[in-house]
Amino acid sequence: MAITVVGSVAFDSIETPAGRRDRCLGGAATYFSLAASFFTEVRVIAVVGEDFGAEQLAVFNARKIDTRGLEHASGKSFFWEGSYLDSLNEAKTHTTDLNVFGAFEPKIPDTYRDSEYLFLANIDPVLQRRVREAMPDVKLVAGDTMNYWIKDHRPALLDVLLGLDILLINDTETKMLAGNNNLVKAARSVLTMGPRMLVVKHGEYGATAFYGATHEGIGAKTFRAPALPLEEVVDPTGAGDSFAGGFFGYLASQKELTPGVFRRAMFYGSVMGSFAVERFGTERVQNLMREEIDARFEQFRELTHLD
Amino acid sequence: MAITVVGSVAFDSIETPAGRRDRCLGGAATYFSLAASFFTEVRVIAVVGEDFGAEQLAVFNARKIDTRGLEHASGKSFFWEGSYLDSLNEAKTHTTDLNVFGAFEPKIPDTYRDSEYLFLANIDPVLQRRVREAMPDVKLVAGDTMNYWIKDHRPALLDVLLGLDILLINDTETKMLAGNNNLVKAARSVLTMGPRMLVVKHGEYGATAFYGATHEGIGAKTFRAPALPLEEVVDPTGAGDSFAGGFFGYLASQKELTPGVFRRAMFYGSVMGSFAVERFGTERVQNLMREEIDARFEQFRELTHLD
Repeated sequence: MAITVVGSVAFDSIETPAGRRDRCLGGAATYFSLAASFFTEVRVIAVVGEDFGAEQLAVFNARKIDTRGLEHASGKSFFWEGSYLDSLNEAKTHTTDLNVFGAFEPKIPDTYRDSEYLFLANIDPVLQRRVREAMPDVKLVAGDTMNYWIKDHRPALLDVLLGLDILLINDTETKMLAGNNNLVKAARSVLTMGPRMLVVKHGEYGATAFYGATHEGIGAKTFRAPALPLEEVVDPTGAGDSFAGGFFGYLASQKELTPGVFRRAMFYGSVMGSFAVERFGTERVQNLMREEIDARFEQFRELTHLD
Repeated sequence: MAITVVGSVAFDSIETPAGRRDRCLGGAATYFSLAASFFTEVRVIAVVGEDFGAEQLAVFNARKIDTRGLEHASGKSFFWEGSYLDSLNEAKTHTTDLNVFGAFEPKIPDTYRDSEYLFLANIDPVLQRRVREAMPDVKLVAGDTMNYWIKDHRPALLDVLLGLDILLINDTETKMLAGNNNLVKAARSVLTMGPRMLVVKHGEYGATAFYGATHEGIGAKTFRAPALPLEEVVDPTGAGDSFAGGFFGYLASQKELTPGVFRRAMFYGSVMGSFAVERFGTERVQNLMREEIDARFEQFRELTHLD
């Protein structure tokens, strides 16, 4: 089933201990779309500037991602510059130029309207909500956010959460959103805000899904997927969005959403995240083959299963 | 099969967000012995002072831990005072009084000499080596260490590593020992120093075992056991030693050391670590029942397995 994703398509300049790349294709919607495209049909909604040309479009086309919702505006694309020199776990942002993204008004092509899955990547919750409301009939909605929206745009974000089935955020964001420093208590609290499932991404330690009953005395159920211990993390940019793409893409590819399907989706999320960090930007995922994904899935099983 | 463990038996004063305990029974050998005692026969070598009385001895006796190697010296027992007020992941040490431990000369009772398993808990590597050399016929030797020995007593520690089958340390210690900031590369490097298996403890994120071929081009195999997402961590003291006790105790209880047995040992390590932190000091583990261990093992399987 098709996924519509709304989010950023951008240019990133990235510096890590492995080197530097200037103005490579980036943005949450880009990473998400590429990862999800290995599992199902993906339709992207975003805005780009005049600097986004044939070369960038070809990356989407090669993965058969529907770009009819990619608006071309006059001006420059969203630009982010950051480095991971001190720690691969946390980016230091040097520049954020919203450019055409600053006046982004998501427009949903009619051909997208039968999408059964919707992913709201990390953008202004006001826009997330608008897209959510414009697509009331989707079967499953997942979304991401970040500390900035949690801290300074809380009411708008809480509105978005009410319309989400699944929220994917990291440890710090979960604790900040709940105002509780214990991850399990924080997760339980987030599960009372709307989402029926919370996926907490732990970076190099994998991710945990919290779901199920959460009223007094009954803890949420949990499932933990590891990250692959990697010899070299070249560039962590986009790992979380690639996780989301693998996770949600796999869900959308399945007829029935059983507990087992959600568990495998967590593994596919980790698989896609592990590929994303092996090269700069989208390099690794855009050149990936489905057989490599399946082989790595088996590696994750081997890494975690008793028998 | 019996395990002999050498290490510290101490009094700890601990402050955490959950409260404070003064002079409760602690020390690496104590935590290790209690955890391992649920799986196999345990024999402890340590020194205590005149402040160690019937009450403390009873904790060992209740778990049938052999204390004939517990030397009673004149003076006070090893005392540690620390807090976890800022972070549950790292203790802030306020006081370390070695007391009788400062002149500790491990003596191995003759009745311990047929032990087939030896655990060298975190003490001066010179003492670890002496005990290792005095028990040349053991079947399997594991050990722990800490940043202080890695940094300031490296030659003595490297000697100990040559005599170890399994080393259990945390992320920071692994990177420090190898002088490499990438965990996988660091682990590969540590596996050239003697141990055939390295177990890296990640605190709230579980632990990873690295083992197998590590020469150029062939990475170590890995197995990752999660930690249980806990609603309340009362006191992290002893979690790593309890992990080691569960891990090594389970190994010693098995007839054959197959790959599957090592995987289950990783889970039992995580299980015992998860109990240890639920109460102050040794409170939880000393009152544990074998059925609770088995039930939690199944919880860990549920937490991680696809089917």
